[in-house]
Amino acid sequence: MNLVRRIGVLTGGGDCPGLNAVIRAVVRAATAGPRSVEVVGIEDGFDGLVGDDSAPRVRPLTAAGCRGILSRGGTILGSTNRGNPFAYPVRQPDGAIVTMDVSDRCLARIAALGLDALIVIGGDGTLAIAHDLALRGANVVGVPKTIDNDLSATDVTFGFDTAVHVAVEALDRLKTTAESHDRMMVMEVMGRYAGWIALHAGLAGGAHAILIPELPYELGTLAAHLQRRAASGANHHLVVVAEGARPQEGELSFASDIQASPGALRRLGGAAATVAKGLEPLGIETRTLVLGHLQRGGTPTQRDRLLATAFGARAMELVWAQSFDRMVCLRGTTFGDVPLADAVGQQKLVEPNGELIRMARSIGIGFGA
Amino acid sequence: MNLVRRIGVLTGGGDCPGLNAVIRAVVRAATAGPRSVEVVGIEDGFDGLVGDDSAPRVRPLTAAGCRGILSRGGTILGSTNRGNPFAYPVRQPDGAIVTMDVSDRCLARIAALGLDALIVIGGDGTLAIAHDLALRGANVVGVPKTIDNDLSATDVTFGFDTAVHVAVEALDRLKTTAESHDRMMVMEVMGRYAGWIALHAGLAGGAHAILIPELPYELGTLAAHLQRRAASGANHHLVVVAEGARPQEGELSFASDIQASPGALRRLGGAAATVAKGLEPLGIETRTLVLGHLQRGGTPTQRDRLLATAFGARAMELVWAQSFDRMVCLRGTTFGDVPLADAVGQQKLVEPNGELIRMARSIGIGFGA
Amino acid sequence: MNLVRRIGVLTGGGDCPGLNAVIRAVVRAATAGPRSVEVVGIEDGFDGLVGDDSAPRVRPLTAAGCRGILSRGGTILGSTNRGNPFAYPVRQPDGAIVTMDVSDRCLARIAALGLDALIVIGGDGTLAIAHDLALRGANVVGVPKTIDNDLSATDVTFGFDTAVHVAVEALDRLKTTAESHDRMMVMEVMGRYAGWIALHAGLAGGAHAILIPELPYELGTLAAHLQRRAASGANHHLVVVAEGARPQEGELSFASDIQASPGALRRLGGAAATVAKGLEPLGIETRTLVLGHLQRGGTPTQRDRLLATAFGARAMELVWAQSFDRMVCLRGTTFGDVPLADAVGQQKLVEPNGELIRMARSIGIGFGA
Amino acid sequence: MNLVRRIGVLTGGGDCPGLNAVIRAVVRAATAGPRSVEVVGIEDGFDGLVGDDSAPRVRPLTAAGCRGILSRGGTILGSTNRGNPFAYPVRQPDGAIVTMDVSDRCLARIAALGLDALIVIGGDGTLAIAHDLALRGANVVGVPKTIDNDLSATDVTFGFDTAVHVAVEALDRLKTTAESHDRMMVMEVMGRYAGWIALHAGLAGGAHAILIPELPYELGTLAAHLQRRAASGANHHLVVVAEGARPQEGELSFASDIQASPGALRRLGGAAATVAKGLEPLGIETRTLVLGHLQRGGTPTQRDRLLATAFGARAMELVWAQSFDRMVCLRGTTFGDVPLADAVGQQKLVEPNGELIRMARSIGIGFGA
Repeated sequence: MNLVRRIGVLTGGGDCPGLNAVIRAVVRAATAGPRSVEVVGIEDGFDGLVGDDSAPRVRPLTAAGCRGILSRGGTILGSTNRGNPFAYPVRQPDGAIVTMDVSDRCLARIAALGLDALIVIGGDGTLAIAHDLALRGANVVGVPKTIDNDLSATDVTFGFDTAVHVAVEALDRLKTTAESHDRMMVMEVMGRYAGWIALHAGLAGGAHAILIPELPYELGTLAAHLQRRAASGANHHLVVVAEGARPQEGELSFASDIQASPGALRRLGGAAATVAKGLEPLGIETRTLVLGHLQRGGTPTQRDRLLATAFGARAMELVWAQSFDRMVCLRGTTFGDVPLADAVGQQKLVEPNGELIRMARSIGIGFGA
Repeated sequence: MNLVRRIGVLTGGGDCPGLNAVIRAVVRAATAGPRSVEVVGIEDGFDGLVGDDSAPRVRPLTAAGCRGILSRGGTILGSTNRGNPFAYPVRQPDGAIVTMDVSDRCLARIAALGLDALIVIGGDGTLAIAHDLALRGANVVGVPKTIDNDLSATDVTFGFDTAVHVAVEALDRLKTTAESHDRMMVMEVMGRYAGWIALHAGLAGGAHAILIPELPYELGTLAAHLQRRAASGANHHLVVVAEGARPQEGELSFASDIQASPGALRRLGGAAATVAKGLEPLGIETRTLVLGHLQRGGTPTQRDRLLATAFGARAMELVWAQSFDRMVCLRGTTFGDVPLADAVGQQKLVEPNGELIRMARSIGIGFGA
Repeated sequence: MNLVRRIGVLTGGGDCPGLNAVIRAVVRAATAGPRSVEVVGIEDGFDGLVGDDSAPRVRPLTAAGCRGILSRGGTILGSTNRGNPFAYPVRQPDGAIVTMDVSDRCLARIAALGLDALIVIGGDGTLAIAHDLALRGANVVGVPKTIDNDLSATDVTFGFDTAVHVAVEALDRLKTTAESHDRMMVMEVMGRYAGWIALHAGLAGGAHAILIPELPYELGTLAAHLQRRAASGANHHLVVVAEGARPQEGELSFASDIQASPGALRRLGGAAATVAKGLEPLGIETRTLVLGHLQRGGTPTQRDRLLATAFGARAMELVWAQSFDRMVCLRGTTFGDVPLADAVGQQKLVEPNGELIRMARSIGIGFGA
Repeated sequence: MNLVRRIGVLTGGGDCPGLNAVIRAVVRAATAGPRSVEVVGIEDGFDGLVGDDSAPRVRPLTAAGCRGILSRGGTILGSTNRGNPFAYPVRQPDGAIVTMDVSDRCLARIAALGLDALIVIGGDGTLAIAHDLALRGANVVGVPKTIDNDLSATDVTFGFDTAVHVAVEALDRLKTTAESHDRMMVMEVMGRYAGWIALHAGLAGGAHAILIPELPYELGTLAAHLQRRAASGANHHLVVVAEGARPQEGELSFASDIQASPGALRRLGGAAATVAKGLEPLGIETRTLVLGHLQRGGTPTQRDRLLATAFGARAMELVWAQSFDRMVCLRGTTFGDVPLADAVGQQKLVEPNGELIRMARSIGIGFGA
């Protein structure tokens, strides 16, 4: 009989509101009932397991130790993208850094820690590592984490609601200045490949145009949209731009550069600055704001806390059921799980002709395309 | 050919954050495109259509007139439960008030106003009236509105997210006092028949016990749960109580009264006071808070704004498609619609043995049953 | 030479946002510089010093241990009104409880702990004890704490800004419902003797009438004010009531009871319920909300964090200067200090004919008197 | 006898939360009492008075028309820095733009509008114009408006509290990411000449270093401060930078450029980017955030609403008293007024050796100097 006595938890990748809520739910679910098990927190993601230290960096996690973290942003375990066990940078005697597969060490340390299961909370990259470890025999359960909400295997991920919340609060503030001073405000939100944050924030925040990576924009179309607004009496414009939004090829004198080189957009000052520059001929006084890390940190919204809590509790159900190499997810109003193999690498993008875009267009929002 | 040239919008029932966002979306969707139609706002729900005034109380709605209302709570049209056209109180010559069917007058006024369609935003009662008018030939589209999120025909309704948001913000505030002063805080939230607000707020706000109407509580079970918490070192307790939560019959000396008479709970000071009184023997210093109308008013969350906007845009799609006697809804991530007949009267309650309750129990939350 | 090597900190009385910010500032000021001293936290106010335990309940406080508490409500030290060293309840051999002076034990324990100074954070009662201990030789510095802002020795106290903030957020929410549904909302805020919270919240939240203890109200005057509003087209009313607001004697049939017995107001359901009941003849649909503990807990506003931080730093300056039996304060924009003897027992009430009341009246706010 | 029958209100300069609250208070104070007067709103600041239109751009302001604006950011009157009557750009027949004194036209239009007084809400530049108009006979009352709180004639101005509130909310969000990911966050706030926002936000938000214009920083001193923090175990740093903060001359290779040219800081990407770049040698992963217009717009805090309301009511008291060429102000807890001549051009800067800096240093905050 294969009893669970001790489990590990780790968080990997960028910051995301709700990580602590997952950790807390896992710990409580592991310890609240009659079959209470020990929980060990791995520090700094996979680096805590395979780092050069003589031993893994871990700490015991108890319900008492998790008090108060439900509403706290960040992660008490630290998080990083360093430490991929399958491609770990190892310094050679001659000083050179060589990337090596140290997954044996990783598995050995999981065994040495006596972990009967490992719950891995992370984005696509972290979950891919988790799946590879599972293929090598580790008892892993994945919990998806992406602010961008661009994972196809779940309807929604925690952190997304908070990011949109922050973006809409910002739009609410920018709006009054735009109105009072006849201005255009161009606000850049996260979303390198997927425009979900931009689309939701724009719809909820009353944006007049939304630019997303899935719909490369034509500057002339965008300008015409804003001019029509002005002609009908609007004295101000709110434009939400995903960081990955870019002009159609050939549209701007610099657009071909952007197509040619991934860094070109950044060199131009980012997506918002590119739009503002491109709209200069309109002669509207314009201000840009790049929300940046405001979207990733701080107290999660209640919805993200609930989602993260349910994901944590569901992950522990998979552990009890010895159902490994799977990821928890939400479908409709039901919490379920899918094979990790089906979850990783499947990006969910905004459909250019999908329902939300169609509705947004119907209420007069422009997409510059 | 049956073109749409003019539509009406009305809001009925209690307050709910997002009503204005629906109105704005309807108006923008009706007027933004090439097939722009006139929109008429009916004031004060059905009372504006059938009231004793010589004419209906209406006002034109334009996109310009709807500027700034996306984020505003309440409804610019007024809202009330008065004015049921099928049971309207009419004063007789002798001074007596008699309830009469004045639906003929209602239909006549819809015709006189030249409304090719009427979008009705309201709760179960209001939508039932809308359906009855549809049966009598009116071109109505329904938009569901319930803070309690207890409509089975849609996964979620706008207003609910805001109510939970307000409740969780309150729990966050109460928590620090409870911790610092070794207290029990009992917070009462809305939910006369359905415990959704209590359940979501309790999960997201870190409650230690949640009492909902679907699971009548046993005081001894609840007390034992809190005593176990105290025994394991917890110095404080957060209890969330739905206004409709009540003890099991026979459990309290006054419980049989509560079962016998719907007003008994209120006479005892409400659900929270009843719980606090019942737990007095525990000897824990206890404070109660009744959130009341804080949950119904004010700025909607971004999620409610998005949901309300999408509902409004979808309602207008039904109008363009001449698809009447239907209600818009959300299923998973898809906005759709259902026959009004299938939507009204179908309450969605928390399943006592369902997924959320099971998860909540697994992380140590008590339900007193 | 009388060097400081070790100090103590305690928090007494009810909850107040900013307590932790004071503690953190004290600890950082005590430990940041070259003349770093040890800081000991006394738990549960004076009860931690004089309680029946064999030793005082204390814990070391370090800068690292205070990380993250700046924005946290409550107090990490616990707080209570129990434990007055000059009137401590002691159980006699025969089982009777007798109130005794145990200040000798208190002073002895301060000495035994090696405390060269004791920083006492508390309200009027707690500071009076601090002063009495100073008279008996203890090196105490006081930091004022009152949500009600009713201390005459300082322009403002931390916690007040947060309480007003919470009250105004609530008014913002109630307002939209009041407007949409033609209602009167009566909201009760803290303030048993002083109407500062009610006055500030009412002014900032757009109240139409404000009732404060300093101005007992006449129901007829209040009703006439609201009727004038209604006559000029207002469909709703927001009334803010301090918990200590009460009708003038003889004004209500039950007013004489209220004058005669301090508990009568509470027995009537509190100040808001009394007003609502008294205004029933107006026939306006009315809802009441008692904010209660929402005002005392949770994250302090930035202003309260700054104020509390400055108070803590200033308290430590007094310790370095060996300037004891004094309380820190703010006058205008200058942080200073006053003798504790001058600070305690001096309540600052709203002047019935003062500037703020005059301005409030000038913009149409009624006071029912 | 010189009765007041009609007054004007205008708002000038940049956006500032609380402008609408002042307008509302003026209108209510002007119309609530028995000596009710008409209020006329001038649109777009002085440009509405002296613009090229055939008539001034004005609109009547009533109490009903001001409903709901107390909590709304921006200004319903529009605001701009255009339209200085003493230096107005006039296009000549040959197409050239020549700056001319059109104050005669301004005074004539004030007279033609029948304004017995003009309340001017604005910053230093706008108030200087107001004073100059007063010298030419106009009955003006000034209301100070500056987000930066850098006016010496008043203890505090509305808008400042909101700006600090927004900055501290942002710090709260950035903090969790900094902690979880071992990062330095450099946040840039407003304050070209005065560091008040940076200082207050840094103190209330738990910053570890604050850079302000009044204390040009030495990069080595700043780096040493952060290294001491790291040596004592701190894994993250929060740095708040005023937009006008700059390195001491000679300190950076590019510092002499900054001293030489006011635009150099901007060309380097702003104050935060300059700091981040200068600290690169420390090898700490660093992110920057420029808060920008987030600080100027949106709902004012309750304190700013109260302050703005009191300023508006006090301005109207000056009008009733025929006390012109004066500006309202707050000293301690008293609302008063000063001659406009004494108010304009008197900037209030942070004292480098003042109380707040001293306290901030005492709790371990570094200033890089």
